[in-house]
Amino acid sequence: MEDGLLLVVSGPSGAGKSTVCAQLRTEMPELGLSVSVTTRSPRAGEEEGINYFFRTAEQFAQMQANDEFLESAHVYGNSYGTPKQYVFDQIAQGKDILLEIEMQGALQVKRRFDRGVFIFVVPPTLSDLKHRILKRGSETPESLMRRFSSAYNELSYLDEYHYLVVNDSVDLAVERIRSIIVAEKCRMDRNARLRRRLLDEGADNGV
Amino acid sequence: MEDGLLLVVSGPSGAGKSTVCAQLRTEMPELGLSVSVTTRSPRAGEEEGINYFFRTAEQFAQMQANDEFLESAHVYGNSYGTPKQYVFDQIAQGKDILLEIEMQGALQVKRRFDRGVFIFVVPPTLSDLKHRILKRGSETPESLMRRFSSAYNELSYLDEYHYLVVNDSVDLAVERIRSIIVAEKCRMDRNARLRRRLLDEGADNGV
Repeated sequence: MEDGLLLVVSGPSGAGKSTVCAQLRTEMPELGLSVSVTTRSPRAGEEEGINYFFRTAEQFAQMQANDEFLESAHVYGNSYGTPKQYVFDQIAQGKDILLEIEMQGALQVKRRFDRGVFIFVVPPTLSDLKHRILKRGSETPESLMRRFSSAYNELSYLDEYHYLVVNDSVDLAVERIRSIIVAEKCRMDRNARLRRRLLDEGADNGV
Repeated sequence: MEDGLLLVVSGPSGAGKSTVCAQLRTEMPELGLSVSVTTRSPRAGEEEGINYFFRTAEQFAQMQANDEFLESAHVYGNSYGTPKQYVFDQIAQGKDILLEIEMQGALQVKRRFDRGVFIFVVPPTLSDLKHRILKRGSETPESLMRRFSSAYNELSYLDEYHYLVVNDSVDLAVERIRSIIVAEKCRMDRNARLRRRLLDEGADNGV
């Protein structure tokens, strides 16, 4: 069995990547998610190892010092991280894992695991992005411009990603990501075991 | 519009690549084929520029000297070649082109156009290959062993290909190649025009 894939999906706020990832997971229930480590307190109903791995700030800092995260971030007073070992264990069992994360986190993952599949979701045009952000109705002209500039600035880092998926329709975008998954599993460098088996079989047949 | 893809599909005799390519073309009639240049005489009904480009041995040699072929071969006294300019023109018009060729030809194409998508079709096991070759019924033990050894030897060159497609079922193999086509069109380095357009649009919006 070959290793599973680590799929890292990013995209500017307003590109619709959450909707796309949600539908992708509905169509591919076998697609796993990572369980994050966090320093925040469990909310009602949240379970250790299911929703999060709950750790103290000291434990989190120690994990960071040990380079145990694929990526980590500090948000509103709490730390969050994607545990390297957990993800690697799943992948080693042949399971594909989907990480839907911001570009900052994705670039951290890329430095630590370049066998990941890095996908960036974009709207067909930046005007679409503007319209989608505006439709949320909660933006001031300043925050709209800030989001828009941030989306624009992310475009400079696209070379870090392997794939660019246009979200002109959710169905099409999901279909593209599904195709990327199938294609990546066919990539020559992901089929070392199959190649080894074919070669061994040839040797057994005396060629 | 981005360039079309040049898909190069090879595989050992008996792997079923012709059946797979035939079904792929039925499902994707928009997939173009190259028109080969040949020194052999036209047969009844064959048209210049449709079935082949018919050239004299001298013209063919001159084209070879001018490096006008993506690949060429000499088979049973006649020469055959894939004309570079024809393929590049189709691709520049956004058309995807399928070349179903032997490994020798594929390696020649690879040296001349590494933006091609190189796919190698294999049977699930080498025993399957043996059975499929045997089923044709026309093989002597020697010719069977020769075909089998040749298939085995090709496995050493797999690193030249980008994708390995197992033909465990024709439907699955075709689906994999279709996914590869969709995925390749999403590859970051094949979307320079889209990226440029998004950047220009951002600039027009004053960011």
